[in-house]
Amino acid sequence: MNDTNEMQLGNRSLDWIDDTVVMVDQTKLPGELTTLRIDTVDDMVAAIKRLSVRGAPAIGVAGAFGVAVAVRAHGTSGPELDSAIAALAHARPTAVNLAKMVERVTPLASQGFDVVLAEAMAIRDEELAASIAMGNLGADLIAELCGDQPVTAMTICNTGGLATVERGTALAVIQTLHERGQLTEALPCETRPLLQGARLTTWELQRMGAPHRLIVDSAGPALLSRGHAQVVLTGADRVAANGDSANKIGTFSLALAARYAGVPFLIVAPESTVDAATASGADIEIEDRGSEEVVAFGERATAPDGTDTLNPAFDVTPAELITAIVTDKRVVRHDQGQTLATHPA
Amino acid sequence: MNDTNEMQLGNRSLDWIDDTVVMVDQTKLPGELTTLRIDTVDDMVAAIKRLSVRGAPAIGVAGAFGVAVAVRAHGTSGPELDSAIAALAHARPTAVNLAKMVERVTPLASQGFDVVLAEAMAIRDEELAASIAMGNLGADLIAELCGDQPVTAMTICNTGGLATVERGTALAVIQTLHERGQLTEALPCETRPLLQGARLTTWELQRMGAPHRLIVDSAGPALLSRGHAQVVLTGADRVAANGDSANKIGTFSLALAARYAGVPFLIVAPESTVDAATASGADIEIEDRGSEEVVAFGERATAPDGTDTLNPAFDVTPAELITAIVTDKRVVRHDQGQTLATHPA
Repeated sequence: MNDTNEMQLGNRSLDWIDDTVVMVDQTKLPGELTTLRIDTVDDMVAAIKRLSVRGAPAIGVAGAFGVAVAVRAHGTSGPELDSAIAALAHARPTAVNLAKMVERVTPLASQGFDVVLAEAMAIRDEELAASIAMGNLGADLIAELCGDQPVTAMTICNTGGLATVERGTALAVIQTLHERGQLTEALPCETRPLLQGARLTTWELQRMGAPHRLIVDSAGPALLSRGHAQVVLTGADRVAANGDSANKIGTFSLALAARYAGVPFLIVAPESTVDAATASGADIEIEDRGSEEVVAFGERATAPDGTDTLNPAFDVTPAELITAIVTDKRVVRHDQGQTLATHPA
Repeated sequence: MNDTNEMQLGNRSLDWIDDTVVMVDQTKLPGELTTLRIDTVDDMVAAIKRLSVRGAPAIGVAGAFGVAVAVRAHGTSGPELDSAIAALAHARPTAVNLAKMVERVTPLASQGFDVVLAEAMAIRDEELAASIAMGNLGADLIAELCGDQPVTAMTICNTGGLATVERGTALAVIQTLHERGQLTEALPCETRPLLQGARLTTWELQRMGAPHRLIVDSAGPALLSRGHAQVVLTGADRVAANGDSANKIGTFSLALAARYAGVPFLIVAPESTVDAATASGADIEIEDRGSEEVVAFGERATAPDGTDTLNPAFDVTPAELITAIVTDKRVVRHDQGQTLATHPA
């Protein structure tokens, strides 16, 4: 059964297959590739909560599919449907994309299951199209910046198909480079503390057959300074109006080292990440995620009992260190004096 | 028995106590503080090999004490003594300090155990005096650079008493700042892949009662850019003639971010680390330590089977990013145009 699911899922992290949602269970990666069939809203909420599906675009699609499942179970209106939809929208409270996509399909509930499902499929297809567009725009830009020689590309965190539907953001560019024969190798940073790079990005690079070597985060800047990579590509959690970009902790150090080494540093993120309401990086609050992630690995302590930490989940890379921002709709060349304002989508 | 050892050992990582060598078993840290009594050359060689004692100055002292143990067991000459001394000198082949200190005491073997032991004690005392001198010179410099306000100091790897006899190098400066009431807190980087910062430096900071919070390596540059620290202090494995300094991977990224943030970056290392025979950082070969350290933590895999890595153990910080080099004999202010050549020890 799972084998069939996997075949039908192809390289997607989740999809609607045989009248239900099928998704890669990301909590089992990289140890094993297992797929989940999600037939109920309860199962979908649980899957989102335990991070079987993660990444803003992917959980947006999961939420939309979840509404279709809810309508099939509870009909086109009523308190049961309302409470199922509320549970979906709040499965991860801070994930804006989840609530946004649930809100987008909910008004269609009155038109029935088929209409809701069609809209959820449209969201899925839009996400995939956005990944393809980012991949192409990013790879074109790299050819322009670096010439026709294949490049070694450094990246951080997981920005691949697992975080979207397929292909991803920054990793979509690396995949496109690989498909075009323009990739020497990828250098994914392991991404402490949660090791998304080690656990997920290497797995995706293996799956796409792209040559890669894993590095510890602090090796990234040093390797850049020694000429080991020709481009750095990262995603973004939020891009401020002035181009300052918040992303996984460690991104700033790569941008700084890329500048020192004279290597282009590119942010690759969907247009929905650009937040005109945030003027600059100074307005972005950085979440401290507490000690637990840092002082132990699985069951095993890495630091003495009682060790306190400072554990910022994100950092802010100032626009001045970003060569260009690549979205699904535009390329904004900071290196040519362009800004998000002068080059609107 | 162990309790007595611990009390007599005080804050030292190893010492000669009650006619034998007593050392902290660093392989047990930070889980438990246990001490080893080393009565034979075989035990000393084994302790050095399994890293119960580590850090160039500390294993130099261990080697010298080992020769005393050898002379006591095998007399002042003969093949048994020669082979015991050779085993000590080669317990860790790449550790220059070990061979150097064994070579220093070996010619005294003919004068008997007491003379060898006295010289080994002298080496121990010189290492301790060097740590005290580095601590004072570094803390004085920080007062000059940062003013009288207490500072938050960032550091990487383990450069404390565990790596020397007591106090250490960069961590000796932090300890001196703490003793002078000039330390707000220390921010040790965890130091992937082997986590010396998380495992050992936090333990030493706890032991000295200095306030500290552990950070992941890639958070260091970001926290510097947001003004979280007023000084960065690191050790060095080798300082080239032009001031370029090789140290634990991650040091370069801290130096780069310190420069970006306008924060002083200081190398603190004994005079013996300065290598006049190495012209510049370009002449320093960087060891790649292979995949094992990166792709698993203890028994637990962090990356898919077969993941290849690029795992440089060290990086090179160019002299231009180093505010000053502090040794046990001098302070070389790069920020004032001084060089190792213009300001000899």
